[in-house]
Amino acid sequence: MSFTAREVRVARLPRGAVRADDFTIVEAPLPDLAEGEVAVRNSWFSLDPYMRLPLTPRAGLHGAVGVGSVLDGAAVGTVIASRATSLPEGTVVLSQKGWRDGFTARAETLQPLDPDLGPPQWRLGVLGLTGITAWVGVEVTLQPAPGETIFISGGAGAVGLVACQLARRRGARVLASAGSDEKVAWLEREIGVDRAVNYRTADMEGFLREAAPGGLDCYFDNVGGETLSAALRAMRVQGRVGLCGAIAQYGDDNYRAGPSDFFAIIEKGLTVTGFNAGLTGPRGGEILPALSTLLSSGELVWREAVVEGLDAAPSAFASLFDGANTGKMLVRLAG
Amino acid sequence: MSFTAREVRVARLPRGAVRADDFTIVEAPLPDLAEGEVAVRNSWFSLDPYMRLPLTPRAGLHGAVGVGSVLDGAAVGTVIASRATSLPEGTVVLSQKGWRDGFTARAETLQPLDPDLGPPQWRLGVLGLTGITAWVGVEVTLQPAPGETIFISGGAGAVGLVACQLARRRGARVLASAGSDEKVAWLEREIGVDRAVNYRTADMEGFLREAAPGGLDCYFDNVGGETLSAALRAMRVQGRVGLCGAIAQYGDDNYRAGPSDFFAIIEKGLTVTGFNAGLTGPRGGEILPALSTLLSSGELVWREAVVEGLDAAPSAFASLFDGANTGKMLVRLAG
Repeated sequence: MSFTAREVRVARLPRGAVRADDFTIVEAPLPDLAEGEVAVRNSWFSLDPYMRLPLTPRAGLHGAVGVGSVLDGAAVGTVIASRATSLPEGTVVLSQKGWRDGFTARAETLQPLDPDLGPPQWRLGVLGLTGITAWVGVEVTLQPAPGETIFISGGAGAVGLVACQLARRRGARVLASAGSDEKVAWLEREIGVDRAVNYRTADMEGFLREAAPGGLDCYFDNVGGETLSAALRAMRVQGRVGLCGAIAQYGDDNYRAGPSDFFAIIEKGLTVTGFNAGLTGPRGGEILPALSTLLSSGELVWREAVVEGLDAAPSAFASLFDGANTGKMLVRLAG
Repeated sequence: MSFTAREVRVARLPRGAVRADDFTIVEAPLPDLAEGEVAVRNSWFSLDPYMRLPLTPRAGLHGAVGVGSVLDGAAVGTVIASRATSLPEGTVVLSQKGWRDGFTARAETLQPLDPDLGPPQWRLGVLGLTGITAWVGVEVTLQPAPGETIFISGGAGAVGLVACQLARRRGARVLASAGSDEKVAWLEREIGVDRAVNYRTADMEGFLREAAPGGLDCYFDNVGGETLSAALRAMRVQGRVGLCGAIAQYGDDNYRAGPSDFFAIIEKGLTVTGFNAGLTGPRGGEILPALSTLLSSGELVWREAVVEGLDAAPSAFASLFDGANTGKMLVRLAG
């Protein structure tokens, strides 16, 4: 019994904006299974902004990825052949092997999924890194209090969408930015955001001055760049800033650089905390059940932007940086 | 009875590095005293790095100062004529009227000094904004624990000197940077710093890697610039950074810009807090007595770099940015 997988490989490192032809799709025969290994056919994989980072000359935490490599990332799939008693055929598993429709791996590197927790692809989003990140930002890092004003950039993105609703549930007044008038309307009408703004057309500093005349108590940053500097200028004295990501900067070789108004942190005595899902600490185990309960009761709205087929992954990934998605961008593979 | 004061005025806004001839010294006749006013002859005034900030085109919190103005700042002096019963002649007072040898003011804008608290010029340094700032950074913001490693840049400057000793008293391992081999030796031998480094000649990243192989738990930043970026790269995951000042950047019109490795804050989940003496909160009243006790018992070493006479102030201020001073730079006026 032999398998051939299809995988998306890096054809060249993007220069600036990601383009679909920075990637190529290749057939890769899979090795025979050794004892303790399984073969998995993926049904979904995740496209995330952070995946841009290993493709830069100054890759940091995420390491660098060379031409010819497959990007790592979360995927869910089904075991289709097994030489491991712990993972029989038919088991649905979470992996971190990225952009491919199948692979072999040692069983202990895979995580079997609890089917009661929701549709399996939720583990790539609201019940995975996305949801954990939003939770850590709102419930651990920023903790907006009732009546406080929090601004969340990228509010219609995967993390932002969850963060907006968690902040709202805490009784905070929520401002959010997004990249189209449709997203702005959706955030205000469906997601409960108090005031949303289209960052492409609005004057961000003017919006924040008008919507938060007393200054922002909290800022949840998903985008970096000029929005971060505008938010720093709009913070009240001793306000809190949570740094989650900087999608607006990822196309720039200089993406690691700080905001133009960094000095506001000193002048206003701000506290700025970086966070990511890998730093949840001891509270990690509580987060997924809490999010699952909110989803089941309908108190938390979740949204996915689904792209069909491996061949669509490169262009979908490129469009992520143009803000084409509302909610979590996923690739669905033919079963 | 009439008085004429001499004052240092801004002759032009510095371009880049401050020069002595950016200032001019002018005689200014003082107005007759109105009821409730006093005349003060200054004996000391303070030269601080933050005073560079109002001299930039992008002045922030501190506002802008125009050509012909006198820089604000802390001074101590003696009431030499009084039409206010609350401040009789001979009272020693703290003022914020800056670089001049005398002035008139309403009595309620001045603070009479408690002579038991130490030499009056200490109120311009260790028992003033300098000491409060160091305390807030170490005891409130960073709180290094016994055995933790803290790096303090500008360790031989006024704030850094106090911060090094406070951190040492908490049982932390203290690393510090300074601008000469003499300062480095003094910090290690007299001040109790575990390892000091001359930032002008050493490879800062190499020093931090070697001196803190497990990463920095805390960083107390007085200088900004490349030292800040090196420290961010040297932080351990979830370390704490306190931002006090950025003297290395103050000569740059773009001084408000962030460090080149800002993204480390996200990747490592750092917490970065700005602070200054104006943000002490309810603990403000406890700080000066605590510092005074440490000084009296000899547990806290204090050092002043004294310049004689008003005419020396401009060149002394310029030299502050070259790191000419060890400890607090003060101007002493003929009595």
